Amino acid sequence: MAQKPSIPKGTRDFSPVEMVKRNYIFDTIKKVFQLYGFMPIETPSMENLSTLMGKYGEEGDKLLFKVLNSGDFLSKIDETQLRERNSIKLTTKISEKGLRYDLTVPFARYVVQHRNEINFPFKRYQIQPVWRADRPQKGRYREFYQCDVDVIGSNSLLNEVELIQIVDEVYKRLQLNVIIKLNNRKILAGIAEVIGEADKIIDITVAIDKLDKIGLDNVNKELVDKGIAQEAIDTLQPIILLSGTNQDKLAKLKELLASSEIGRKGIEELEIVFNYLNHLNVNTEVELDLTLARGLNYYTGAIFEVKSKDMEFGSITGGGRYDDLTGIFGLKDVSGVGISFGADRIYDVLEQMNKFPEETEATTKVLFINFGEKEESFCLPILAKLRANGINAEIFPASQKMKKQMTYANNKNIPYVILVGESELEEGMLSLKDMETGEQEKLSPEQLVEKLT
Amino acid sequence: MAQKPSIPKGTRDFSPVEMVKRNYIFDTIKKVFQLYGFMPIETPSMENLSTLMGKYGEEGDKLLFKVLNSGDFLSKIDETQLRERNSIKLTTKISEKGLRYDLTVPFARYVVQHRNEINFPFKRYQIQPVWRADRPQKGRYREFYQCDVDVIGSNSLLNEVELIQIVDEVYKRLQLNVIIKLNNRKILAGIAEVIGEADKIIDITVAIDKLDKIGLDNVNKELVDKGIAQEAIDTLQPIILLSGTNQDKLAKLKELLASSEIGRKGIEELEIVFNYLNHLNVNTEVELDLTLARGLNYYTGAIFEVKSKDMEFGSITGGGRYDDLTGIFGLKDVSGVGISFGADRIYDVLEQMNKFPEETEATTKVLFINFGEKEESFCLPILAKLRANGINAEIFPASQKMKKQMTYANNKNIPYVILVGESELEEGMLSLKDMETGEQEKLSPEQLVEKLT
Repeated sequence: MAQKPSIPKGTRDFSPVEMVKRNYIFDTIKKVFQLYGFMPIETPSMENLSTLMGKYGEEGDKLLFKVLNSGDFLSKIDETQLRERNSIKLTTKISEKGLRYDLTVPFARYVVQHRNEINFPFKRYQIQPVWRADRPQKGRYREFYQCDVDVIGSNSLLNEVELIQIVDEVYKRLQLNVIIKLNNRKILAGIAEVIGEADKIIDITVAIDKLDKIGLDNVNKELVDKGIAQEAIDTLQPIILLSGTNQDKLAKLKELLASSEIGRKGIEELEIVFNYLNHLNVNTEVELDLTLARGLNYYTGAIFEVKSKDMEFGSITGGGRYDDLTGIFGLKDVSGVGISFGADRIYDVLEQMNKFPEETEATTKVLFINFGEKEESFCLPILAKLRANGINAEIFPASQKMKKQMTYANNKNIPYVILVGESELEEGMLSLKDMETGEQEKLSPEQLVEKLT
Repeated sequence: MAQKPSIPKGTRDFSPVEMVKRNYIFDTIKKVFQLYGFMPIETPSMENLSTLMGKYGEEGDKLLFKVLNSGDFLSKIDETQLRERNSIKLTTKISEKGLRYDLTVPFARYVVQHRNEINFPFKRYQIQPVWRADRPQKGRYREFYQCDVDVIGSNSLLNEVELIQIVDEVYKRLQLNVIIKLNNRKILAGIAEVIGEADKIIDITVAIDKLDKIGLDNVNKELVDKGIAQEAIDTLQPIILLSGTNQDKLAKLKELLASSEIGRKGIEELEIVFNYLNHLNVNTEVELDLTLARGLNYYTGAIFEVKSKDMEFGSITGGGRYDDLTGIFGLKDVSGVGISFGADRIYDVLEQMNKFPEETEATTKVLFINFGEKEESFCLPILAKLRANGINAEIFPASQKMKKQMTYANNKNIPYVILVGESELEEGMLSLKDMETGEQEKLSPEQLVEKLT
């Protein structure tokens, strides 16, 4: 009756080797978050469906994993409802909880629910899995981690600057070359305004966003298709093709958006951010990119995106400022700004660039080969001493064949093994073997501790 | 249209203060696991219901949270099935995934599924949430973390010893006084055998287990009720009332169980474990307790339980050896031994004993009070220098009222604030205020870094 075991499609097991690498990413990110004064929170995996539904659009509602009510859920369904055979309608009767789809909506819910206990400005980070009933495909999973960091309750642009510093520091520590793209929703609004199409801001931005992929002619065609006036499209050309340094672009934008109040405000915000960055020691290149428009429906100020410079890969970090995240739960006028690190993509980049560190403090440094009772007796107190000195160490739990024990050490990437045979026992010494070079040396217990510490 | 936000009953939000405390527990446990050569794995939150169902008894099946299939799940239900109005039967048609109920079954599934990649003996730990549709009550949640550590693929008793050492080390680091209770399923089997009731082992153990709570008379009454012969109950009396040191108890058991092979085997196992413990430096008291019977249905050798000595509290850690965990998934004869730390209970004990450390490296050490543009400009590079030296530091993001900024520091338990006003600016110095003593000193940037490092 044995079952062939498997896991749901789109989900993953993480082996020890993968976990060590993932934890390297999470620990690096957390350490930097903490350096900047951010503190962790966690929210439940299940939220009430009333909290989640309607927040991610119609498509998002479908992609929510819904949890069946416990007990005799059918007892509350009347005959008519049952006969209707409408899965969507029935769902609302038999399910009232769902798995969280992202960390943003639960965070907004958290802020509103706990607003009287929260110390504003609230600098929080949150690293937890989210679930989406997406069609699984390469690089897209039904369960994956998000790493979000936000400041809420402060509209100071210093927060934008610190998020950029965090990105700079995280990728410096991960040894990845990245570029930070920066834009501002107010500038996009200004552009739409000066070309006389203020209400078409989303269509315009979506089209401009495709410049790299489809080229200028096709962007212009799309603008025509969306019903943008030819005159407006003409006015837009110098903006789409804006180039040069950030200063050049800002200077040009100042001319072009002179008549738009919101546009001028966006330029001013960007200038303040760039001034801070010049003043501080940010090494990562920060590029003003007007085609950047991600999450436009709720960003209201800065928009960020980070890309690897070494590899063609989508965005590995992104975010922006939102002025009304908590409004959906009844708390108005709380401005926030945040970014999210894409752990799975960062993992893939590090893996392909071979940038994971070889040494880690999370794995075993030394294995005692087990030669039998007498030798074990001699080794165990020394093993305890190594551990007392903070050295990850283990002994093979039984005196099995030497080859089996060495294979165990090899498979687990343990850099050293300790051999204690007859002669070592007599001398009270231990032989330490370097698994990479094959070199072996005899050491006293004290020398061993010193050597491995 | 604002919703009043709430979370599903039995679930929890964790605030930054709670998270720091929880992470202190998890980090302490993980560090010790790693010292002993254990490596982390993670499994998906959702498992196929075929993996989970039938593993936790009928009651357990009801307590599984089931996830509704995506899409038009009703389209696969025929008229008869619908009319039957049987929630349990319908569930199997509209749901094929469930949230994991514990870490043991997913681990068994993992071992079988990945048996060709695993390096045996497999020393793994796993710290992840589990979900149970239990009726929520004080101290019982529908989502909670388990911390499991197991060695699988080795029947060496050294593994039992190392788990006891891990318990000893974890609670030493957490500064809690605990007692480790130890028993062995083979001894219980031997007892049932010598009193002539081998098939009633579970009834007998369940009754003995209640000795502390209901007293000897009631235990004996329960044994009668279960149909145990009076003669057997009489033979059992000296065993139930066994007292003295572990040596005393073992000596007595040797006499009483002399005729039972499995009983003698159990005694031998315990003696080996106690010999190891005497040889090593285990400070925690380890007590042989014959009334200990937890998880009897699948433990086959050692049984562990850890209790706080300072507080009346249930078990805070427990486990044992199981010889056929993976059999349910078709892999026979793989012996394992493991324990599980109850993070929520450990949290409650630490909280009530006031044993959480005051200082932590996870929180902000110093806040720069923001007095305005000029002062901020002076402070920002110094702030960057502190962070470069690994000091968690922040600046209030805007120059708001002094009182508001000080309150922020207070609420966040930040031990130091830095004040830079006119006079400090002129001198190029910073005033460092100790928030606990109220003392204040003027320091150069270099002195500041040195002081806080």
